[in-house]
Amino acid sequence: MNFEQRLRAVQQAMADQQIDLIFLPRAANLFYLTRIRRHLEHGTDHNAYGDWLSGGYVGPAGPVQVLAPRMGGGFFQQEAEGKAWVGDVRLIQEGEVPREVLRQVLAGFGHTSGRVRIAVDERSWAQMLIALRDILPEVEIVNANEIIMPLRMIKDADEIAALQRASDVADAVFVKALAALKPGATEYEVAYEIDYQFVAHGAEYTSFETGVFFVAVDLDGGGTTRSGERRLTHGDSIMFDFGGVVDGYCSDFGRSAFLGEPPADYLKIHDTVLQSQAAAMRAMVAGRCTAAEANAIARNVIADAGHDVGFTHRLGHGIGVTVHEPPFLDGVDQIVLQENMTFTVEPSIIYPRRLGNRVEDVVVITPGGGKPLSTVDRKLYVID
Amino acid sequence: MNFEQRLRAVQQAMADQQIDLIFLPRAANLFYLTRIRRHLEHGTDHNAYGDWLSGGYVGPAGPVQVLAPRMGGGFFQQEAEGKAWVGDVRLIQEGEVPREVLRQVLAGFGHTSGRVRIAVDERSWAQMLIALRDILPEVEIVNANEIIMPLRMIKDADEIAALQRASDVADAVFVKALAALKPGATEYEVAYEIDYQFVAHGAEYTSFETGVFFVAVDLDGGGTTRSGERRLTHGDSIMFDFGGVVDGYCSDFGRSAFLGEPPADYLKIHDTVLQSQAAAMRAMVAGRCTAAEANAIARNVIADAGHDVGFTHRLGHGIGVTVHEPPFLDGVDQIVLQENMTFTVEPSIIYPRRLGNRVEDVVVITPGGGKPLSTVDRKLYVID
Repeated sequence: MNFEQRLRAVQQAMADQQIDLIFLPRAANLFYLTRIRRHLEHGTDHNAYGDWLSGGYVGPAGPVQVLAPRMGGGFFQQEAEGKAWVGDVRLIQEGEVPREVLRQVLAGFGHTSGRVRIAVDERSWAQMLIALRDILPEVEIVNANEIIMPLRMIKDADEIAALQRASDVADAVFVKALAALKPGATEYEVAYEIDYQFVAHGAEYTSFETGVFFVAVDLDGGGTTRSGERRLTHGDSIMFDFGGVVDGYCSDFGRSAFLGEPPADYLKIHDTVLQSQAAAMRAMVAGRCTAAEANAIARNVIADAGHDVGFTHRLGHGIGVTVHEPPFLDGVDQIVLQENMTFTVEPSIIYPRRLGNRVEDVVVITPGGGKPLSTVDRKLYVID
Repeated sequence: MNFEQRLRAVQQAMADQQIDLIFLPRAANLFYLTRIRRHLEHGTDHNAYGDWLSGGYVGPAGPVQVLAPRMGGGFFQQEAEGKAWVGDVRLIQEGEVPREVLRQVLAGFGHTSGRVRIAVDERSWAQMLIALRDILPEVEIVNANEIIMPLRMIKDADEIAALQRASDVADAVFVKALAALKPGATEYEVAYEIDYQFVAHGAEYTSFETGVFFVAVDLDGGGTTRSGERRLTHGDSIMFDFGGVVDGYCSDFGRSAFLGEPPADYLKIHDTVLQSQAAAMRAMVAGRCTAAEANAIARNVIADAGHDVGFTHRLGHGIGVTVHEPPFLDGVDQIVLQENMTFTVEPSIIYPRRLGNRVEDVVVITPGGGKPLSTVDRKLYVID
């Protein structure tokens, strides 16, 4: 991937939009721009000293400057090594006052007062914005996604190749997941086998919490959206929803299965889901279809079969360095799909605590429609 | 746990500090105040519609008001059920403009203009702060941790009981982890067994990425801090570093092991680490010792044994609803330890790629020193 070209494109957009500085914490946008990998938070707060000002600082020219806490700073130094588009990594020592370090960095870019326009990653922490306002009372803060997302939405050949590798790993993991479907196995036992297989197949981590659902879940609901203690029982419908991150890019994969002989109405539901997905993929022609239209086409197939109430979520979402990213295939997004955008297409019919069926693929937008990356059959997998 | 009392204490602090409103996204502070559980991000961005303004809004009186995206909103509704201290959950529909929803919420609290003082969780996203500034140009934004952390630092009896349960689960998982230490097993195979056992023992998730290290790792370093493909080999030193979240509270546990007959110098290193930990725990008497002093006492034991260079990190950290939280047992924090504060005490001696040894316990500060929660022997575990 040509990171120097990406940085130039961002710096050009900064000039066009009169942005003086961009701050990107260790997250998707920084990875996209520099290949400095992201961090898994685990929801329990690492709290390294100076973490809130840690990340990349992008000026109008020159490489990305990186600030990192001493604790864990070796990670940033290693990630920066050999990258012409990343400058020296400045470590924040425990003896320093983080806010003073930020003041020095801003001064290094020539910003000590006045009306500076700074774009920050939309998930920068409040601490950063409070400190920027204190150091530069006239600062104007804008959302860096407005600059970077238009670039991220269209994938280049290297990115599509990475998404293909992530998809290939998910395909391989699915074979192992099917093998783990034994009567009496719990959802989380199968989910943990999947998580393990992702790492064993070279994924950095999973794209999201792995979903293994026996019978139906309420996708809008609470505790039941997590793979749990339910044991696989004859007559259960089974839904998989999982993905892994390979070379920084996400996969997101879904297939359905059934333990025992599926009843006729369940076979029909599976067929409806497949038709819905296929109709959307056919329609998703570059330059010819909006995100909202793709969503409506898939929804109509399911509504015509009388199952509208069972399809409660958007059809899909953009996917790349983040697993859910713009554009979204929902009822709202009017963007026209362009060549080399990438989306999930994931219709479902779910009746909570009765049955569930979903098929999900990542597709690349082409002049011939949405082309799926997975090579795994979309059939209903019947387990004895 | 008495959440109504916690809310009253926060609202009293708001009055004292002239704070008009607090915003807490779905994270540790909101959990502490309401028991609405946190979210695992997985570093790949869920991006629900309206996610950035989702969370709890705390006014000067009355229950916490909750705003949630429609997608996943059922989770918040379920979490709010039966809690007198949480008001109705308002869902953000895809047909609404999120910023307008925020404007309505602020107006509902009586804030349509003027100099409103709003405290936000320090990890609130930039989008929230940008929107607040646009809606209320004279808003004054402060860090909500200044109000809530002083309460969170001192644990009540229910919290210490939850930390004990989290510790008990880690103790039980350790038995399984030891059983997984077979020659030829990889670090991540053992780590995944640990992750699985946490869920099997009732943990919500792990406190952080589970660490299983054969021979030494560079704790300040990069890729090597992740459990990897190295296979357990005779003569390897082994370090465990793991924890799980039970009833919202974290454990953080460390023991060391050795495959084969440990050399005399390694036995001596283990003994030094134990002495360092014991000296710190003895000194951590309520009202008598600062965070920095505890760190220095442990460090001196290791320095006296000639291994200062092998102890590269702080001695420990506060622990509760987040795994790392103030106060920190580092060279900087001058706070006096108080009764019912809880800390990890985790000295180590690590020589990258040569050997590693660490013992870690969570302790409660008492008038008699730091009292460990784990009942697992701190000996060196020798594996045949």
